[in-house]
Parts: sequence; C-alpha cells; structure tokens
Amino acid sequence: MSAGVIVLLSGGLDSATVLAMAGHEGYRLHAMTFDYGQRHAWEIQAARRLAERHAVVHHAVVNIDLRQFGGSALTDQLEVPKHRQVQEIGDGIPLTYVPARNTVFLSLALAWAEVLGIQDIMIGVNAVDYSGYPDCRAEFIAAFERMANLATRAAVEGQTMRIQTPLIAMSKAEIIRTGLELGVDYGLTTSCYDPVGEGLACGHCDACLLRLRGFEQNGEVDPARYVVPRSSNP
Amino acid sequence: MSAGVIVLLSGGLDSATVLAMAGHEGYRLHAMTFDYGQRHAWEIQAARRLAERHAVVHHAVVNIDLRQFGGSALTDQLEVPKHRQVQEIGDGIPLTYVPARNTVFLSLALAWAEVLGIQDIMIGVNAVDYSGYPDCRAEFIAAFERMANLATRAAVEGQTMRIQTPLIAMSKAEIIRTGLELGVDYGLTTSCYDPVGEGLACGHCDACLLRLRGFEQNGEVDPARYVVPRSSNP
Repeated sequence: MSAGVIVLLSGGLDSATVLAMAGHEGYRLHAMTFDYGQRHAWEIQAARRLAERHAVVHHAVVNIDLRQFGGSALTDQLEVPKHRQVQEIGDGIPLTYVPARNTVFLSLALAWAEVLGIQDIMIGVNAVDYSGYPDCRAEFIAAFERMANLATRAAVEGQTMRIQTPLIAMSKAEIIRTGLELGVDYGLTTSCYDPVGEGLACGHCDACLLRLRGFEQNGEVDPARYVVPRSSNP
Repeated sequence: MSAGVIVLLSGGLDSATVLAMAGHEGYRLHAMTFDYGQRHAWEIQAARRLAERHAVVHHAVVNIDLRQFGGSALTDQLEVPKHRQVQEIGDGIPLTYVPARNTVFLSLALAWAEVLGIQDIMIGVNAVDYSGYPDCRAEFIAAFERMANLATRAAVEGQTMRIQTPLIAMSKAEIIRTGLELGVDYGLTTSCYDPVGEGLACGHCDACLLRLRGFEQNGEVDPARYVVPRSSNP
C-alpha cells in the first residue's frame, strides 16, 4: 500500500494545488478541512468537491470555533481591506491574520496523522501568502516539525513526522502553472476573503488580486466567478 | 493591572494546583478547559467550580471533539487498565494516551493568549504523569515554546511567549502539599480515568492510585469520593 499523507485543504487555490501534487507523487490522500467560523463557510463545499475530484480516501471536516477568541477579519465582523491592484497590498501582518491558525490546524493534523499512522502532512503555505503571516514562514514550519517529533507516541517509537510545504518558494503564477499541468479545476476553488452571496469573488481583496495576477501571468483566465465580469475591471 | 496568565484547567488535581499557584503569584487568571469527548465529561463541572473558587476572570470551555480521530482509552471505548497498587503501573506509554493532546491544547491556548495579549501559559504536566506521555516531557514543552515564539503576530512584534510548567519536577506528594498550603479544595477535583455515576472515583486506575498515595504520603485523606470507602481498600 502506498504511503499516506494528510493535506490541509481549505478549498482555496493553494491547497487545491498541493492536493494535486500529493496525488501526483503517489500518496494515499487524506484531507483535513477546518470549519472555524470563518465568513466564507461555503469554502468548505469547495473543499468537499476538490476532495471528491482527487479521490481522497478520507476527508475530515473538523469543526472548531475560533470565533470565541475573536481577533481577526476572517472570523470577526471587521472590514476586509480592498485594493484596485496588487501593488497596493500592504507589507505588515494583514488584518486577515487569524491568531495561531496554522499552529492549531497543524496540531490537529498531527493528532490525526498519529491515529492513522501517517508520517507526512502537507500545507500550502507560500512566500506570497506570507505577506506578513508569521505562521507561513519556513522557520515556523521547521520549529513545528521539531516540536511534532517530540510530541507523539509515534515519534517516541522512532517514526519521523514531516511537514511538507511544496509551495513555499513558489510564486502564485508558478503555483497556478503547476496546478494547471496537473489538471486542477480551479473553477472549484475559492480564494476571496469577502465573497458575495453563493461564492462570487469580490475581485479586490488581497487574495483575489494575487490570484488574478497569477492567472494573467500564465496567459490564462481565472475560472472563478467574480461579482464584476473581469473584462470590465481595471 | 497585573499580568495575565492562561491556565489549562482539566478539573484534575494537578491543574487545580497550578491554578492556585498562579493566583498566589498574583497573575490575573484566565482558565481554559477542553471538552474533547472524554468519558468523564462531568470533569468539566469540576473545572467550572474550581474557576469560580479561584476568581478566574474568564473561563473558556472549548468544545473540540477528538473522538473523530479515535485512538485512546479516554475517548474510545477501550478498557481503562486497573491495578491494586502503584507498583503495578506499567512503564510504557499508557493506553490512556490521547494523540497529540497537549500539542492541540497548547495551540488553542496560544491562539487565545494572542487575542488577550497574554504572554504566559501554565500547564500542569509533571514527572509522575509522564509515566510515558511524550507530550508531558520538558523537551517537548521547550520545543513547543520555541515554535510558539515564531507562530504569532505577537512574537513577530517582540513579545515572548512562555509555557510555564510549575509542577514538572514535583512528585504527586509535593504537588498535593503545595496545593494544601495554598488552600486548594481537592474535594472539588477529580482524577479518575474511569469514574462511576456522578463522579465516584474507581480507586484502581493509574490516576487514582497515584493520587491516593500522594495524600497518604502527606498524612492526609483524599477528600475525593471513591466507589469503595478507602478504609476497606488494600
């Protein structure tokens, strides 16, 4: 039997690409999606469709209400920052930062990995998304991996846990190119921080702008549905 | 205003002692209890009573269902091991081990700490409870702390997060003596892995045996309620 992997699957462009990469590498796929009270709860439906498309063996949708801690635009009712172009995206830690999110998600993935006897976890952090997210940095991931290798019975018994970040050094355009080559249907994915109705992307939050530019740089049209038809956007 | 601390409060003897120690040190107390589908859910009531008694500012009871991962006597329907005396407790990792439990709990505490602007988390791990629990070891805690100091916006902005383990080098008898000196009402606490009815302790699981011996070594009677009156036990 092939080795298993747990892919953290948000339903967004990055994690969809990671899922396809893991499948391409021959892993038996397990996917983990968190319902943490974020605004775009229908993202979870996107994750379900992706899991189905990529023949995931087990898709765990874990309910964990981070809203009780507050402190982020993704879970509170703060206003999501909007821009007209990528260049306007700020340098600092974005308002959309969720406290210790990747730490919490990776911890739960670690628990599940141990139960399944799996030694690999994949997470779609990358340099572009680290426009200030501390828990998307390589040094954070390395520290988490060190900790994980002391945390579990599996580790004590000599199994090594690996936190794989195949996208970490890739630009958004490279991620999209990789995914397109592997047949990812990006029409199933959603990235918008502030979607309208049943998943129409706003086209102006950081996530939308980075995504749109990535497709443009590949000479492709983003198949996601936007509020305003893209041709009429700046 | 005094500095705040988050105490991981299970409702057991150890965390009750930590709570009293934190209060004695003058911290503003926040307590965090996890309802993770364990058998002894009424433990949560014990935690609530302790939080009230020790004037906790905010007691967060976080629902997180680890049962969906399976793999432990505390959450599955495995049989809890029973013994007649402490010497019979095995060396290895106990069946009552919950995969990555402290990693998950500390991660959620880290998220809450960041929201509250708190730099200290206290957890009642100790050498005796590390009868094989990998995530009760000092080296695990140190690795978690290193990771935490890379994980958050607070860390990036220069705040240091500390994971305090005041019990780590103490025997059960020392923990109990400390708590008695600080006025902990151990009648409110519960340690049993396999309680009967409304919180009667079995007297023969690892947790009961270690606790009973700790009181005995202090020349005290454990105020917890046991199924069989303690005088008739071996």
